Amino acid sequence: MIYVNNAATTCPKPERVYQAINSCMREVGYNPGRSGGVGISRIEREIFDVRSKVAKLINAPNSSRVIFTSGATEALNLGIKGILKQDDHVITTELEHNSVLRPLRKLERSNMIELSIVQVDQKGRLNLKQLEDQIQENTRLIVTTHASNVIGNVIDIGRIGELAHQRGITYLVDAAQTAGVVEIDIEEMKIDLLALAGHKSLYGPTGIGALYIKEGVELDTLIEGGTGSDSLSTYQPILLPDRYEAGTLNTMGIIGLGAGIDFLMETGVAKIRAEELELAKRFITGLEKIDDIIIYGDLDVEERVGVVSFNLKGIAAADVAYILENQFDILVRAGLHCAPLLHQALNTKDIGMVRVSFSYFNTEEEVDIILDVLSKISKDKEEFSL
Amino acid sequence: MIYVNNAATTCPKPERVYQAINSCMREVGYNPGRSGGVGISRIEREIFDVRSKVAKLINAPNSSRVIFTSGATEALNLGIKGILKQDDHVITTELEHNSVLRPLRKLERSNMIELSIVQVDQKGRLNLKQLEDQIQENTRLIVTTHASNVIGNVIDIGRIGELAHQRGITYLVDAAQTAGVVEIDIEEMKIDLLALAGHKSLYGPTGIGALYIKEGVELDTLIEGGTGSDSLSTYQPILLPDRYEAGTLNTMGIIGLGAGIDFLMETGVAKIRAEELELAKRFITGLEKIDDIIIYGDLDVEERVGVVSFNLKGIAAADVAYILENQFDILVRAGLHCAPLLHQALNTKDIGMVRVSFSYFNTEEEVDIILDVLSKISKDKEEFSL
Repeated sequence: MIYVNNAATTCPKPERVYQAINSCMREVGYNPGRSGGVGISRIEREIFDVRSKVAKLINAPNSSRVIFTSGATEALNLGIKGILKQDDHVITTELEHNSVLRPLRKLERSNMIELSIVQVDQKGRLNLKQLEDQIQENTRLIVTTHASNVIGNVIDIGRIGELAHQRGITYLVDAAQTAGVVEIDIEEMKIDLLALAGHKSLYGPTGIGALYIKEGVELDTLIEGGTGSDSLSTYQPILLPDRYEAGTLNTMGIIGLGAGIDFLMETGVAKIRAEELELAKRFITGLEKIDDIIIYGDLDVEERVGVVSFNLKGIAAADVAYILENQFDILVRAGLHCAPLLHQALNTKDIGMVRVSFSYFNTEEEVDIILDVLSKISKDKEEFSL
Repeated sequence: MIYVNNAATTCPKPERVYQAINSCMREVGYNPGRSGGVGISRIEREIFDVRSKVAKLINAPNSSRVIFTSGATEALNLGIKGILKQDDHVITTELEHNSVLRPLRKLERSNMIELSIVQVDQKGRLNLKQLEDQIQENTRLIVTTHASNVIGNVIDIGRIGELAHQRGITYLVDAAQTAGVVEIDIEEMKIDLLALAGHKSLYGPTGIGALYIKEGVELDTLIEGGTGSDSLSTYQPILLPDRYEAGTLNTMGIIGLGAGIDFLMETGVAKIRAEELELAKRFITGLEKIDDIIIYGDLDVEERVGVVSFNLKGIAAADVAYILENQFDILVRAGLHCAPLLHQALNTKDIGMVRVSFSYFNTEEEVDIILDVLSKISKDKEEFSL
C-alpha cells in the first residue's frame, strides 16, 4: 500500500511511537494524578516531560500552559469559546477547516458574535491587507490556519501575530498541518493561542492534541470535572494545566505524542520539512506533465507543506480516489477535506479535489508510482471509468 | 505491586486489550472516515463494531446513538450542557463526582440554572423520596451516579428513571463506576442519557468514553468541527453519531475499549461482579477485625461495587496511603476522590479517606496481604508514623 493521506493522519508512525505506547500500557497503566498524597509517580513524570517537549517545540516558556486535549478540534473549540463574549467580532479566513468554521458559525447563528471571513484569490492566496481592513473596534479574536490542509500554502502567521498584537486582539493559530514540520515560535510570532493535532505531523496517535495558552490570556473552560486537585471545591480550579484538563488524561496518547516529538527532535524539523517539500515538488513537476490535470493553489509559493490537490478532467475526484485505492492500492483523499469555503472559492465545491499528502516516510519511488498510475488513467479514461 | 485503585483506572487490562491496541496502531493506523468516496475501510468497520458492542452492553437499540467521547467527563459535560437551557432546574445528589458537580456549579454560578442537591444520610444512603420532593415545575434534568466512587453503594437508577419518565424529566446517569460490572438496561431503567468511562470497569484504556443518547433526546453540541460528512456545510451536521463526534476519533482508544468489552462479554458481567463483591466482602470482614478502623458507607447494602473506604484513627489517610505504597508496594487512593459533598456529609472533608477498589484481576491473597499490613500499622502506629 502507498499511503499519501498524511494530512489526515500520518501513517506509519516512527517505530518508537508504537513501542512507547506499548510500554506505557503494560508498565505504567495505573492512574496519573489520582493517587492522593503519594509522591509523583513514573507516569506523572512522563506526562510532565511530554508537556515540556511540546512547549520546547513551539518555544513556549511555560509548559504548564500546554493543555492536553482530545485533538486539535477540542483545542480550537476551547480557544474560540473560551475567549469570546457576547457581541465580540471575529476575523477568520476562507482557508479554514470546519474545526474552526463550525464553532464560529454556531456562535454567529446564536447571535453571540459577528463574523468576518477574509476571502482568498483564485490561487487560494490570502491578502493580509484585506485581513487588516476587516478589523473593527470590537474585534476580539483572529483565527487562522498556519497552512491550508487542501492546497498546502503556509500563512505568514508572524505578520498576523504582529498585527493582532498591535491592536490588542487575541490571535489563535490552527497549527494542525504544520506543528512538527514548519518552525513555530510562539514568542517571536506573537501567537496567543496555538492548537496542535497529535496525529499528523507530530507523529503521535489520534485522540490527542494540545492548546497552548500564552501567559496573560484568560479562557473560560469548555469542560469541567475532576482534576485530582483542589478536590474539596465544586468549582473548577484556577491553576493550569488542571483548569482545562478535567477528567483522566489520555495517557497512551500523551506518551505516544512524546515519542513522536522525540523522533522529530532527533531527526530535525528542518530536515523533515526539506524531504517533504522535495516529494511535493517532484509530485507537482510530474503532475504538470500529465494531460488534463488541474493542480490547485499557488505552485510558486516558497512556503508550503507536503500537500498537493488536483483534479483529472473528465473523472470525478471520488472516482479517481476509488480507482487509486481499489486498482493500485494507493490511499489518497478525495472530497472537500472539511474546508468548504476554500472549495467554494476555487469553484470545486461540487466536484471536490484529489488530495495527496506526504509524510517523512514517503519515498521518491512512491511519488513516481503515483505519477505513473495517474498518467495511465489520464491516457485511457474510458478503460478506468467506473 | 498490589494495585487496588481500580475505581480510578483498572490495571492491568486483559492481555487482549494490549494486543488489540498494538495491532490497531500497526495495522490500521490510517485515518477513519476521511477517505472520501472510498469504500468502508477496515478501521471504520472496527469502530462500527465497537459502537455496537457498547450498545449491546447497555441494551441500547441504536448504536448510532452511542457517542464516543474522551471520557466520562466529556460525556457528562455534553449531556448536562447539551440539554439545559436558561432557567431550568436540575436535581443531583451529594454522592456525585466533580465531573457532575463542577459543570452544574458553573451553570448555576452564571445564573443559567437552579440546582438542588439531595442530601445523603450518615451512611451515605440516598432517600429517593427526598429526591422526588425536590422536583419542581421547571425541573429539566436529574443527574445521579449509578454507584458511589467513594463508598461503593449502588443507586436504584431504575426507580429514579421511572420517576423521571413519569414527570417528563430527562435522566442522566453517570455509569463510570458500574458499566461492565453492574447490569445496565437503558430501556428497562428508562435512562435518557448514560455516560461511560472506558478505562474503569470496561477495561479499556484512558482517553475514551461514551455517551448514550436515547432516541428523541435532543442535545446541543459541545464541540463542533470536521466530521468527514456533510463537509460542504459550515454548520455541524444533524445526523448521529457525527453530530457529536467532531474531529478525528481516538482509534486506539475505541479499539481497546472494544477488546475490553469482548473480555467482559466472554467472562460474563455477573461473574465479574460476583468475584469483585467477594473480594470487597472479604476485605470489609477483615477490616472490621482491625482496631481503630472506621469503615464508611452502608456495609449491609446488597447492591455495591468493589470499592471500600476507611480511615485508621490516629493516622492521616494520606499517610496511610504513603506508607502502603512506599513500604509495602500497595497502591490505594487517599483523599477526597473528587467527591467533595459526600466527604462533607460524612465529616471527612478535612481528613479524607483511604480507598481500596478491586478489579477482576485482584485476588483473595492480595486482600489478605493488605489486611495484614493494615493490622500491623494499626498495632504499631508509632513505628509507622511519618
